[in-house]
Amino acid sequence: MQPCYCTEITIALAKGPDIVDITAELAQCVKASGVNAGMLSAVVIGSTGSLTTIEYEPGVVEDLKDAITRLAPPDCAYAHELAWHDGNGHSHVQAALLGPSMTLPIRAQKLQLGTWQQAVAINHDNRPRSRTIAVTILGQ
Amino acid sequence: MQPCYCTEITIALAKGPDIVDITAELAQCVKASGVNAGMLSAVVIGSTGSLTTIEYEPGVVEDLKDAITRLAPPDCAYAHELAWHDGNGHSHVQAALLGPSMTLPIRAQKLQLGTWQQAVAINHDNRPRSRTIAVTILGQ
Amino acid sequence: MQPCYCTEITIALAKGPDIVDITAELAQCVKASGVNAGMLSAVVIGSTGSLTTIEYEPGVVEDLKDAITRLAPPDCAYAHELAWHDGNGHSHVQAALLGPSMTLPIRAQKLQLGTWQQAVAINHDNRPRSRTIAVTILGQ
Repeated sequence: MQPCYCTEITIALAKGPDIVDITAELAQCVKASGVNAGMLSAVVIGSTGSLTTIEYEPGVVEDLKDAITRLAPPDCAYAHELAWHDGNGHSHVQAALLGPSMTLPIRAQKLQLGTWQQAVAINHDNRPRSRTIAVTILGQ
Repeated sequence: MQPCYCTEITIALAKGPDIVDITAELAQCVKASGVNAGMLSAVVIGSTGSLTTIEYEPGVVEDLKDAITRLAPPDCAYAHELAWHDGNGHSHVQAALLGPSMTLPIRAQKLQLGTWQQAVAINHDNRPRSRTIAVTILGQ
Repeated sequence: MQPCYCTEITIALAKGPDIVDITAELAQCVKASGVNAGMLSAVVIGSTGSLTTIEYEPGVVEDLKDAITRLAPPDCAYAHELAWHDGNGHSHVQAALLGPSMTLPIRAQKLQLGTWQQAVAINHDNRPRSRTIAVTILGQ
């Protein structure tokens, strides 16, 4: 029998770039799925968010925020602004470069990550956002 | 019953960076699969293409093209050129940084995306390319 | 019948940025799985590694290493260093931007890639690392 377990989590994020550890929330989804071995797909809904993994300690969080800001600084000119004037041209570019999705392995009924590796959601928008992350778990 | 539905789409792209909305094509794959809930994996075949999601409006498209060009400008020196002289050293680097794959959720027989979030294929090559995107749908 | 085949590969990598072709190892996983059509999820365990696809020739490998170094140069100041002093602040940032996971299609019992497209593992750490890559194969 192979379940397909579909759920979602909602994460409150501050003005971007903000980076929040979502490992515990994803682990809870894995537990609820009953899947012993397989994979989890996580996808952030919305075009100014992204997902990745990091060692979630304050230094790396600050360094990654700096690097994201360098990729698309908020104080440059963006064509998106000319039409929309919502001040988040850089947010769209940053999120597109990092990407909306990741997959993670499930082994022995748990998410498999490194000892110092956590799953994180990133808000790139220029205002706080509550982010929905669609979680799909496949396996057996 | 859990279907595994495998198909592909072919997208014509202009000289890179070119960014094309493929949401309708992927949605058609989901419909054809008959899958109610699960996930879609999309992978661009070829090493000078990539996939992500954006708000597909002309401003963001232009801003993302600019950011991609900054990541690996075509007018820099590339070791790839020394051996191959095909002028697309920057294309390979850009595509590798953005990545060839993404997963997207399927809920209620439809692709789940944000209201202003579209799936896009990007051609980084220095000539027009017809891109094959392998689509694998798993769920129930 | 839909198998879910879970395995892992271990790859020795030099001091980062180092880029190693893992296509043959992943192809062996596909063969062992017996899956005819479906998808493979590969995820690097650890927060200073990443995965992508490239044309694996020495020029592109060198160009991609240069671009990765530009994204987060080792000689900049990193907040991670203030607390940990392990010299790999840049490694964490690089790996987070490239991302830990990718999916690849399986068709006709084989990994589907472009003719000049190989799957690669990247070590960003400032010392050699043996990397575990979790491989999950779903299909039929």
